[in-house]
Amino acid sequence: MIYFRNDYSEGAHPKVLEALIATNMEQTLGYGDDDYCQEAAQMIKNKIGAPHADVHFLVGGTQTNFTALSAFMRPHEAVISPARGHICVHETGAVEATGHKIIAMPTSDAKLKVSQIDEAVLVHCDEHMVKPKVVYITDSTELGTVYSKAELEEISAKCKEHNLYLYLDGARLASALTAPGCDITMNDLARLTDAFYIGGTKNGLLFGEAIVIINDNLKEDFRYFIKQKGGLLAKGRLLGVQFKALFEGDLYNEMGQHANDMAEILRNGISALGYSFFSNSTTNQIFPIFPNELVSELEKVCSFEHEGPVDANWEAIRFVTSWATKKDDVLKLLEELMKLTK
Amino acid sequence: MIYFRNDYSEGAHPKVLEALIATNMEQTLGYGDDDYCQEAAQMIKNKIGAPHADVHFLVGGTQTNFTALSAFMRPHEAVISPARGHICVHETGAVEATGHKIIAMPTSDAKLKVSQIDEAVLVHCDEHMVKPKVVYITDSTELGTVYSKAELEEISAKCKEHNLYLYLDGARLASALTAPGCDITMNDLARLTDAFYIGGTKNGLLFGEAIVIINDNLKEDFRYFIKQKGGLLAKGRLLGVQFKALFEGDLYNEMGQHANDMAEILRNGISALGYSFFSNSTTNQIFPIFPNELVSELEKVCSFEHEGPVDANWEAIRFVTSWATKKDDVLKLLEELMKLTK
Amino acid sequence: MIYFRNDYSEGAHPKVLEALIATNMEQTLGYGDDDYCQEAAQMIKNKIGAPHADVHFLVGGTQTNFTALSAFMRPHEAVISPARGHICVHETGAVEATGHKIIAMPTSDAKLKVSQIDEAVLVHCDEHMVKPKVVYITDSTELGTVYSKAELEEISAKCKEHNLYLYLDGARLASALTAPGCDITMNDLARLTDAFYIGGTKNGLLFGEAIVIINDNLKEDFRYFIKQKGGLLAKGRLLGVQFKALFEGDLYNEMGQHANDMAEILRNGISALGYSFFSNSTTNQIFPIFPNELVSELEKVCSFEHEGPVDANWEAIRFVTSWATKKDDVLKLLEELMKLTK
Amino acid sequence: MIYFRNDYSEGAHPKVLEALIATNMEQTLGYGDDDYCQEAAQMIKNKIGAPHADVHFLVGGTQTNFTALSAFMRPHEAVISPARGHICVHETGAVEATGHKIIAMPTSDAKLKVSQIDEAVLVHCDEHMVKPKVVYITDSTELGTVYSKAELEEISAKCKEHNLYLYLDGARLASALTAPGCDITMNDLARLTDAFYIGGTKNGLLFGEAIVIINDNLKEDFRYFIKQKGGLLAKGRLLGVQFKALFEGDLYNEMGQHANDMAEILRNGISALGYSFFSNSTTNQIFPIFPNELVSELEKVCSFEHEGPVDANWEAIRFVTSWATKKDDVLKLLEELMKLTK
Repeated sequence: MIYFRNDYSEGAHPKVLEALIATNMEQTLGYGDDDYCQEAAQMIKNKIGAPHADVHFLVGGTQTNFTALSAFMRPHEAVISPARGHICVHETGAVEATGHKIIAMPTSDAKLKVSQIDEAVLVHCDEHMVKPKVVYITDSTELGTVYSKAELEEISAKCKEHNLYLYLDGARLASALTAPGCDITMNDLARLTDAFYIGGTKNGLLFGEAIVIINDNLKEDFRYFIKQKGGLLAKGRLLGVQFKALFEGDLYNEMGQHANDMAEILRNGISALGYSFFSNSTTNQIFPIFPNELVSELEKVCSFEHEGPVDANWEAIRFVTSWATKKDDVLKLLEELMKLTK
Repeated sequence: MIYFRNDYSEGAHPKVLEALIATNMEQTLGYGDDDYCQEAAQMIKNKIGAPHADVHFLVGGTQTNFTALSAFMRPHEAVISPARGHICVHETGAVEATGHKIIAMPTSDAKLKVSQIDEAVLVHCDEHMVKPKVVYITDSTELGTVYSKAELEEISAKCKEHNLYLYLDGARLASALTAPGCDITMNDLARLTDAFYIGGTKNGLLFGEAIVIINDNLKEDFRYFIKQKGGLLAKGRLLGVQFKALFEGDLYNEMGQHANDMAEILRNGISALGYSFFSNSTTNQIFPIFPNELVSELEKVCSFEHEGPVDANWEAIRFVTSWATKKDDVLKLLEELMKLTK
Repeated sequence: MIYFRNDYSEGAHPKVLEALIATNMEQTLGYGDDDYCQEAAQMIKNKIGAPHADVHFLVGGTQTNFTALSAFMRPHEAVISPARGHICVHETGAVEATGHKIIAMPTSDAKLKVSQIDEAVLVHCDEHMVKPKVVYITDSTELGTVYSKAELEEISAKCKEHNLYLYLDGARLASALTAPGCDITMNDLARLTDAFYIGGTKNGLLFGEAIVIINDNLKEDFRYFIKQKGGLLAKGRLLGVQFKALFEGDLYNEMGQHANDMAEILRNGISALGYSFFSNSTTNQIFPIFPNELVSELEKVCSFEHEGPVDANWEAIRFVTSWATKKDDVLKLLEELMKLTK
Repeated sequence: MIYFRNDYSEGAHPKVLEALIATNMEQTLGYGDDDYCQEAAQMIKNKIGAPHADVHFLVGGTQTNFTALSAFMRPHEAVISPARGHICVHETGAVEATGHKIIAMPTSDAKLKVSQIDEAVLVHCDEHMVKPKVVYITDSTELGTVYSKAELEEISAKCKEHNLYLYLDGARLASALTAPGCDITMNDLARLTDAFYIGGTKNGLLFGEAIVIINDNLKEDFRYFIKQKGGLLAKGRLLGVQFKALFEGDLYNEMGQHANDMAEILRNGISALGYSFFSNSTTNQIFPIFPNELVSELEKVCSFEHEGPVDANWEAIRFVTSWATKKDDVLKLLEELMKLTK
């Protein structure tokens, strides 16, 4: 069985694991008050050119999203999200469980359009409705697409116009930033968002997400929220040690690049076989559309997820590559697809 | 200025007010433990043929909805609603504020289709997503439409098939039950839903909604929820006294009928002037589509609400009639419309 | 049966009811946007000497408390309250249901001591604990006691010292302000608190509480909270009409004074019979301590509430007087007590 | 600087770390659906003699507590806890943030008394108050004390009598079960509680808690709750791998025993110096009472936490030992104390 199910099938990148091993018996303060967390936070602030940002480390993505969003909003405020956004679909109502409505805007490519922000604000006009306060986007998105710098600038300006905070879910940020043609950098995120998180779980860590809070309004007492929502890891230094390993050198980008490279080989191979794709992904998630019988056969040799039927005879599925994907496995998958195609 | 803005512009129907006056200086127990509440509850149970139902009285509709829905669901469960449902749009996220996602299904006529229940259940298939548990519908709907008995039977059966509770918001139930062609009775509601509420605020009471809980699973400790959510009125007998006035005779239906009759005159008159409607309403809310200039002129003489533009030149607006609407005012409005139509 | 169970056994004061009757068929805007609410709010602002205050009308006390407290706090913040405070004991966890811890400080007289504010702040020192943000007090308290102006000034100053908001629950404010020896006025409340509410339900209205928000920080979007929490009455003018009746003349104080006068006669009579009291009440709730057998006998002729046993042979009970209490009933009760005493 | 600050200053026990290293590059399903989690769960069920229990793995203790408690209660229900309970004090109101009141019962030794359960149930008698539904206890407690089997049997019986669930927080369960004189086994916990968790974070894991759900009523859809509350780790196998390492052999008990042994040496040494203790701990947390000056001096050489002043001149502090504590460090600390005592 070859795995293209997701980007968290393995443990940690060997360099990350080594850092954990090397520091295992050190004694440190708990809850992220240790030196490793301080150092990793400083590295991130240097890297993104935002010396005044606050950086906190949490364990997982869903946790980071609902902790941040519930900290950023008052009870009557709501978050605007693409309808395919992770918070809308795959977090078991975690944001609603903190008391907030998500205003879901339909999209075909999982990217929010500037006009949809206007539309959401226009509709929610008085106290009988929730009040939009945050815009949530993901990059790369749930369909593997990415925002251009121009798009992000536009969204950011629109948020400012409407007095909305812009929060970017970077669970797969590494694959976005290293995607072919992507013109966004982390410095742009620091400049254009009010907060964003740098995903570790889906890019080579055992676990861990680093939230970067740029806007001063959103900083106060954030550690209280992390604690209350269950994200303040007792052995917090595990997060500092891992993120330090990511950003001491260029490991973060290298892993994102590798995942994208593997996806590109796969995408080109599938195109060459004559198949099309459900979305225009340039990153490590690709969504080929195959005949139903091919999908059934493929399941015997490969682990992947189903996106859903596109018509009676064809189905979209999802392949995900990662820092750990071996080129051999990609070629093996292409070979299988070739066999199943004719 | 003539008022067609809503069905709660006046105080109470004179008979209701008289009952309040007559009992004003009586001393009773608080919080609905008085005899009036017991009697009114019994009357309702008799009327709907559900001797084992529980009946409770609350102050307002939004309050009733979020109190009931949060009592009926566990934290990971969600409610399926037409996207135009009152809980989705006009309750300031009250249901989400109790921690629950609303799964909103798009509709053109504000009525949920059976196939949409299947669809919502199918999509929400594992623990990464909320679990559908309640179906919420309104009758009459936000667009003045009503369900037929066949439709309600189908929805009820579908809910049972998927182990979902069916909850019906009857804020405007009187106008539904007395609508021309409506073949549903309160007994049908008692037979086909798990809980529903009989709206008083929009049908001649100062305030008050009577929730009827049919399904035994939903009955336990309901008074705790009313109290916790702020709906347990200290002078609870005000609710009992008012609902008794509604159901001692046939006042409930008479008021609904009057509202519908007034709407029908208005609807026919507008049709005769050559205008069409945004929805196929048979009840006390009608949504004519007028030229923009007419709408502007009309605002000078009549109070109403805007539904929204249908294209660049035409707009849908809402007229609402009620138990208190005078035929003279209807005729006056039609006269104005005739003048503006020329 | 004579009623001394509570101060909401009857309907409304006749003058209040008359105002409702007189305005019943008027057509007004809904949700408190009508002229009556505006006028009543203005009267209150004039009366308390706080032209810049915001005044909103809600239906009940529990609703007002959790709406206000959840609007005033961020999710990690907590409210300090005397352990006998209404929000701690008799609101079915309504404040916790909005997500906030109540820090309960034990008291014998239901009044919060300044030193307890220091204590609560001192203990809650880092992000592993909630952060105190609001101080909640009631006046008159659940034991019928009242704060002196000196005490309130001290508490207010202490709140400012610790950056806490002071919120006063005035469900029984009328009885406090008209208590013998009370040196506090509504102007003092406007000067010393950040927000307080003027209770109507327990002082002659059918229902209704007027919350007065003094601190600008707490004003924004408050109507959203009222709506979300179910307190935005459709026929909002009912609240405006009633509060206008309270404050056009001096009805508010007159009713509080009457309740206190009745309680004083009762208190003196009970003292004369040789009994003592569970609390040093000067208002309309008194807590005599009687032998168990007397209590049992008394239940046959009088409706009252039990406070609880003070030892094996004696029990404290609660008598409440109100604007509607008749002097004859007080004398009748004293007569019964005299009979049961020897 | 010698560390006696807590039992999570280091990383993982070497055997645990080795297991993580050995499995690092394996590909598994995510979210705990992997074989390691299945195997570890089975081991635990075998060990505790509860084949029908459900076992789930979460990341941290606060997370486990609020996830479980919010899953076990309906919105109006409350949990009874000793006032020193972790959920009352050190979880930033996490349980309240899910909407539930904690009924805190004062204790001097952090252990709940059976009579306090009666008391809490007695007081909360109607719908104006929360309804007690769960009893929360910790073992070992926040003061290092442990329950005897007789005490636990009594509490369990009392919970059944009042239809309450018994939930035991086992963050430091290893130190309880291996304490001198402790007559409780894990089998007893499976027999006497409705759910409990086996703490890993404070006993040699990088992180991780295993919740064991015994009562069938509490099992349904628990994974939904873990996901919604942010505890469903993407690389869930990390938890399975670690817990397997704990329970393949006897590592869990060995680590608990070592921590207790180290504490015993320390306790005896401190006693020999003539000092007394704030609590009668038999486990790995001890609370000696020292003169203020000694405490100040000690801070220069040792890292520990302050429990608080016992009078003007004496203060209680906390020393914690763990699986990683070196006997040399214990002796070094005793030496320092001897010097400071002179």
